[in-house]
Amino acid sequence: MIIDVHGHYTTAPKALEAWRNRQIAGIEDPVSRPRVADLKISDDEIRETIETNQLKQMKARGSDLTIFSPRASFMAHHIGDFQVSSTWAAICNELCFRVSQLFPDHFIPAAMLPQSPGVAPETCIPELEKCVAQYGAVAINLNPDPSGGHWTAPPLTDRSWYPIYERMVAHDIPAMIHVSTSCNACFHTTGAHYINADTTAFMQLIQGDLFKDFATLRFVIPHGGGAAPYHWGRYRGLAQELKKPLLRDHLLGNVFFDTCVYHQPGIDLLTTVVPAENILFASEMIGAVRGVDPETGHNYDDTKRYIEASARLTPAQRRQIYEGNARRVYPRLDVALKKRGK
Amino acid sequence: MIIDVHGHYTTAPKALEAWRNRQIAGIEDPVSRPRVADLKISDDEIRETIETNQLKQMKARGSDLTIFSPRASFMAHHIGDFQVSSTWAAICNELCFRVSQLFPDHFIPAAMLPQSPGVAPETCIPELEKCVAQYGAVAINLNPDPSGGHWTAPPLTDRSWYPIYERMVAHDIPAMIHVSTSCNACFHTTGAHYINADTTAFMQLIQGDLFKDFATLRFVIPHGGGAAPYHWGRYRGLAQELKKPLLRDHLLGNVFFDTCVYHQPGIDLLTTVVPAENILFASEMIGAVRGVDPETGHNYDDTKRYIEASARLTPAQRRQIYEGNARRVYPRLDVALKKRGK
Repeated sequence: MIIDVHGHYTTAPKALEAWRNRQIAGIEDPVSRPRVADLKISDDEIRETIETNQLKQMKARGSDLTIFSPRASFMAHHIGDFQVSSTWAAICNELCFRVSQLFPDHFIPAAMLPQSPGVAPETCIPELEKCVAQYGAVAINLNPDPSGGHWTAPPLTDRSWYPIYERMVAHDIPAMIHVSTSCNACFHTTGAHYINADTTAFMQLIQGDLFKDFATLRFVIPHGGGAAPYHWGRYRGLAQELKKPLLRDHLLGNVFFDTCVYHQPGIDLLTTVVPAENILFASEMIGAVRGVDPETGHNYDDTKRYIEASARLTPAQRRQIYEGNARRVYPRLDVALKKRGK
Repeated sequence: MIIDVHGHYTTAPKALEAWRNRQIAGIEDPVSRPRVADLKISDDEIRETIETNQLKQMKARGSDLTIFSPRASFMAHHIGDFQVSSTWAAICNELCFRVSQLFPDHFIPAAMLPQSPGVAPETCIPELEKCVAQYGAVAINLNPDPSGGHWTAPPLTDRSWYPIYERMVAHDIPAMIHVSTSCNACFHTTGAHYINADTTAFMQLIQGDLFKDFATLRFVIPHGGGAAPYHWGRYRGLAQELKKPLLRDHLLGNVFFDTCVYHQPGIDLLTTVVPAENILFASEMIGAVRGVDPETGHNYDDTKRYIEASARLTPAQRRQIYEGNARRVYPRLDVALKKRGK
């Protein structure tokens, strides 16, 4: 079985974006603010957007199940206040839940949170609880920078995040650390802000001692861990300067990297420096990079090809990366699969 | 000959830091503001700090010449106003010039600029001109984020930077894109801010068409290009989505990466994805990572060992990386060396 831990509903029916645009317009002009009930998306519309996109590609590439969350760049936590984010998160999470109900063998939800700049993370707990209890969410996406590229929130090791971590531990769900769109002109969203956030989060975790307080807390750092594996020597050296344990002991019991690295040499590096038990298969398809690589003739984000071609991985390690690690890092996924006899 | 294009005067006599602290205190309390003449550092003091540190390591590791600039984390352009930065840059540049005069065979200066948040980059031109004309500077360090982690300046492709680029082109000097200390708690200076800035700058250059306006402008992106080589497939794919030429045609005539990547797999990746003619030997010694790697028994930043051990590089490519590329990218260095019969 091949589990992709990183997929977003980037192909949702256009009505979703239209509703969001009305919601944004309504921030300044409350009269025009839409009601949740104004958004009408049928099951058939959802089916069509999935069958002709993600599911089609999954079948073509040979992956079975995707952990599916709302479109990351559309979370846009910087827009409006907590109430705006809260309504928007509820809508987006429900849509992903509906995808998982329509295609139970192929999608299982992860929840976005109704984060908002300057608002305490604990305000997100009701949405988190609902998504776990009612939608069967097996993970959350946690945005370390709800400001959208201004980085006004405290580091992930700050105690203001702890209420979220307490609920994660209680439910035994991991968080993928994932920012949203950048509203800072310096940072291209998917080319700079996403990758920088991954690198930033990893370094914050090196600096802190978060896993002393939460021994079973687990984070997935997407996009292959940002710059971290490429600069693994730098990070080992910085941990040493900061008098921290070796990275393996300090972080690798709790921190995992996905395989959203869109070329063979990158995957080869990742699998060279990061132990196989810390690597989770993912593609972020359909996402930031949708084209065909002229050097290979295949989609850049067809990451399974790179895992298959890696000369370094044993068949057992490939199975870990494709399935075993995901079942271990997302125990609620494992439970859900076992219930279905998988 | 082995040229290290990336060294900072991180070991300057303590009097420099003491003076800077007085200068910072003087921002609030003009009475206590020190005069430039209050800073007294003798040639013997400079000699001692170099001979026992950088030069000792250069001899031990086998590099010959370092392009030497003021300590990057001490530039701290976010402190004070243009006048504060201007005085500080002048002092720091003069010190590096003195190092180059005391050790002409081993150090040649690159200039820091008196950048200041919200102040037009063109205000830096007098310092740039002085450093080229009087100090023999062969390059500048350009900070894409003078705010120190708040990223309030426009992207490097913005026209406000053009006056700097015009002078660079006129003098045929490259800029190393190098941020300074982070005053944003989210970003560890050397573990997140430096690497993020490299990644950010690279993506800004992909988004823009700067080299259409300045065909001979050259940037060196330090720390192995941040995350760029590890995510080379992503960047090739994003360039494609943005309808830009292939990265090789779009950027590699003007953009170069140094080898400040502190482990063998990182250097192996760099030399796999980036053409040898775009790679410049560097260590940033003595810099962010000063320890000994327990896995190798050698300093993390002894990057020459990784270049030597690379199975991929031919002897001719190693010579390019050690010397040939530096002479090409820094023509004033080449001229200075030839004047000395080297």
